[in-house]
Amino acid sequence: MDKGIMELINKIPGWENKMLYQGAFAVKPFGRMAGRPVKCVVPGKDKVLELDKVLDAVELKDGMTISFHHALRNGDLVMQKVVAAISRKGIKDLTLSASSLSLVQDALLPYFEDGTITAIDTSGARGRIGEFIQKNKLKKPAIFRTHGGRARAIESGELHIDVAFIAAPTCDKYGNINGVQGKSACGSLGYAMPDAEYAEQVVAVTDGLVSVPLEYVSIPQTQVDYIVEVESIGDPSGIATGSIRISKNPAELVISKYVAEVIKYAGLLKEGIIFQFGSGGIAISAAGFVQTEMQRTGIKAAAGIGGASGFLTEMLANGYIGTFFDPQDFDTKAIESLYFNSRHHEISASAYANPFSANPYVNLLDVAVLSATEVDINFNVNVLTDSYGKLIGAPGGHPDAAAGAEVTIVALPLLRGRLPMLLEKVQTVVTPGETVDVLVTDYGIAINPKRLDLYEILQKTSLPVMTVEELHQKAQKLAGVAEKTILGDRVCGLVEYRDGTIIDVVYDLP
Amino acid sequence: MDKGIMELINKIPGWENKMLYQGAFAVKPFGRMAGRPVKCVVPGKDKVLELDKVLDAVELKDGMTISFHHALRNGDLVMQKVVAAISRKGIKDLTLSASSLSLVQDALLPYFEDGTITAIDTSGARGRIGEFIQKNKLKKPAIFRTHGGRARAIESGELHIDVAFIAAPTCDKYGNINGVQGKSACGSLGYAMPDAEYAEQVVAVTDGLVSVPLEYVSIPQTQVDYIVEVESIGDPSGIATGSIRISKNPAELVISKYVAEVIKYAGLLKEGIIFQFGSGGIAISAAGFVQTEMQRTGIKAAAGIGGASGFLTEMLANGYIGTFFDPQDFDTKAIESLYFNSRHHEISASAYANPFSANPYVNLLDVAVLSATEVDINFNVNVLTDSYGKLIGAPGGHPDAAAGAEVTIVALPLLRGRLPMLLEKVQTVVTPGETVDVLVTDYGIAINPKRLDLYEILQKTSLPVMTVEELHQKAQKLAGVAEKTILGDRVCGLVEYRDGTIIDVVYDLP
Repeated sequence: MDKGIMELINKIPGWENKMLYQGAFAVKPFGRMAGRPVKCVVPGKDKVLELDKVLDAVELKDGMTISFHHALRNGDLVMQKVVAAISRKGIKDLTLSASSLSLVQDALLPYFEDGTITAIDTSGARGRIGEFIQKNKLKKPAIFRTHGGRARAIESGELHIDVAFIAAPTCDKYGNINGVQGKSACGSLGYAMPDAEYAEQVVAVTDGLVSVPLEYVSIPQTQVDYIVEVESIGDPSGIATGSIRISKNPAELVISKYVAEVIKYAGLLKEGIIFQFGSGGIAISAAGFVQTEMQRTGIKAAAGIGGASGFLTEMLANGYIGTFFDPQDFDTKAIESLYFNSRHHEISASAYANPFSANPYVNLLDVAVLSATEVDINFNVNVLTDSYGKLIGAPGGHPDAAAGAEVTIVALPLLRGRLPMLLEKVQTVVTPGETVDVLVTDYGIAINPKRLDLYEILQKTSLPVMTVEELHQKAQKLAGVAEKTILGDRVCGLVEYRDGTIIDVVYDLP
Repeated sequence: MDKGIMELINKIPGWENKMLYQGAFAVKPFGRMAGRPVKCVVPGKDKVLELDKVLDAVELKDGMTISFHHALRNGDLVMQKVVAAISRKGIKDLTLSASSLSLVQDALLPYFEDGTITAIDTSGARGRIGEFIQKNKLKKPAIFRTHGGRARAIESGELHIDVAFIAAPTCDKYGNINGVQGKSACGSLGYAMPDAEYAEQVVAVTDGLVSVPLEYVSIPQTQVDYIVEVESIGDPSGIATGSIRISKNPAELVISKYVAEVIKYAGLLKEGIIFQFGSGGIAISAAGFVQTEMQRTGIKAAAGIGGASGFLTEMLANGYIGTFFDPQDFDTKAIESLYFNSRHHEISASAYANPFSANPYVNLLDVAVLSATEVDINFNVNVLTDSYGKLIGAPGGHPDAAAGAEVTIVALPLLRGRLPMLLEKVQTVVTPGETVDVLVTDYGIAINPKRLDLYEILQKTSLPVMTVEELHQKAQKLAGVAEKTILGDRVCGLVEYRDGTIIDVVYDLP
């Protein structure tokens, strides 16, 4: 990244101290976390209020920061309901902090256009909101954070949330919330937990209000100031998919088989292994091959970490995994597991991945199997923009898991359509190459030169191990040299590494 | 309490702003909680160290504050092991902050005598440590806090803990702790949670170190800096008793039957009732009578709150109670319930009782049944000192539950031996009379005049309802006028109300 860009960034009020990325573990924190607001609720106080009245009660004003979680994913109705009500009040210039933004948030566009929201702090952006960002129409560049980085920013006070609106599938009248019960059950509320802990005011928005204390509490009443009852917080079909199953795509199966073999040959598949498999088809299929090997050898995993899908929670139920630490659930089976399996634990984004704690769960990983939209010959990974530089994804937990894991495997097809996915330089660096150990593609496997230990083991196997340059040449041969995409020259997004440094920027699209 | 005493207290460095008690909900908090220290542990760091090396690593110095929890009760070996090691290093002038001190801590006396510890911050004190305090041998008065008040003090930064040593029945090598597994299982670690969250450094001391991530996590690895392995953290016979059973003492049975009838006639025993029954024989017996009534009527409690004993967790298991919020377990049956019953929740002292949160669980109570060492005609309760002014107990959660509950019932025998337990003025005010609604004794029931509503209902029943003055006269008639105890005139302890104000003091014993 051009150094001049940091100078521009540092001129933006509030961002004077932002620093350039210096290495995955180069920045050491100092000082103290933000002090949370002290509350006092006397016995008998009724927390349930209508949305309009809550907006008055929390004294929402121009320029404040509001926050939301994204566990309702593409079914979320809460952001649009709340922002619409705010817009009706004529409040302007808000910063929208969301743990991520899905396509359903296209519905927020009018409130960007009318100036209700003028800044964004999120993990990902897509669709019309992505376009709005890349038309450079925000007042300042959007910030894209990792899940762990967002928790860090909240805890450090860097991201100060005035009002957190927490979509609550079930909420009792005292303010206890869970995500595992109710018609809009979404599973773990891990990504809402830092907001609930640190926001000045916390508002639960629920379509599952009950009058007796919950049997299962994700976010406790001690953190919730108000409760708003609405008819629906989400569209179930968009919240959780059915079970994510093993891929049937032949190329993906080849890749996932390679991944499983890398894990096996690298000696990682030993009793007590701790792993994260992402939610994509390749990762889940790789988990399937690993499970087969576990069946054969009798080896058991000590823990699974990260987003949970039904395939993994079935492994948990069947004893292949000892315990599961889960900030997010992808399907109904995983949600049920979280509710009913006592070895399946809900953890916050901070516990999961915040680099500045006395250690996040990602640090336990022996191996993380992650996806990518693009990779490059320096092992850098892009999961935020596509080959044309357009916002389509989110850092999510990718940089966090990659930094935490002893071995990080990034698996992707070498080509998608006619486009090469291994490039000289990715459009956007989200996960730094120094934290990526192995690239697995359908055409070959490349090992980061800094992991000579892995190279020496794996090159003796039947796996198609080659240098990353060889793999890159293969991609070029198959797809031709990638055309240089034409981007704008205005910075409209900052890609923040988990420690708060700026690892790359997103440009406008002309 | 004499106003001049506050002036003396305010002259002690650090206590300049301490205020006199002003009413149960008079003090409103402002400002923010303390900022917790930011940590950074990189993947692969080994947290396990020997105790001596940990004391170096945490840079323990003269004048610092060390903390411990009391969930191992009278079986605890951790305080003495740690303080002995500190003493061997010649470190002096420490403040000992414990969630409470049991008789077993008599073993700490040498370290008080040699100046290793010169100040105390606790819920209770007894035995030799109590005597040491009342010989006025500390550098400044001891502070006696409620469970909720201690959490408040920690969160507000008023009680700043430099190093928390957390007795950990089970701890994995990453620092995850639970109290439900291991040979020294003690149940809920609720009283250690604020320490783990806010201390500068957190050290787990465990006799149950395991190498795989725990299936059940009470205190997460994100908060634990070091782990010390020892042979034994406690003597199981002192940690948890067998099941606390229903009283067989006839006088206690009379009292507990009255308690149950007060609950019934006052209309509290309705579907969805939320209650706390203390751990004493009277309270448990009252729970037994209430359960019988629930069996008869089919009524179910929505929740139980507070310390758990086997009788209550059996009610939970059998569906008489919907869910249980538990900061502390008293017997092995309750510990097992916490481990295995998913409706039995471990909560922190702060969640349980801290008045300065967006509401503690005690606020949910319809009724709390509490004990007392003494009460007086203003309904004030003493649970800290005996009839002679000697330290024998602890505020514990008593003032917290009393403040939170819609109806607080204090149950005790009118006489103990030949001493009257209802006095003109208690030795030490721990729970203010304004938060106590009904006194139940074997000789009669008195209702706080501010609860005319309860009086009007209960005086129409067969219960022996009388004025508190009448009940007091009865006590005097039976026991004679209580002799005025001769106390010293030096303040050697402050009794802090849950909001941080000083509600009374403890005097030295000549």
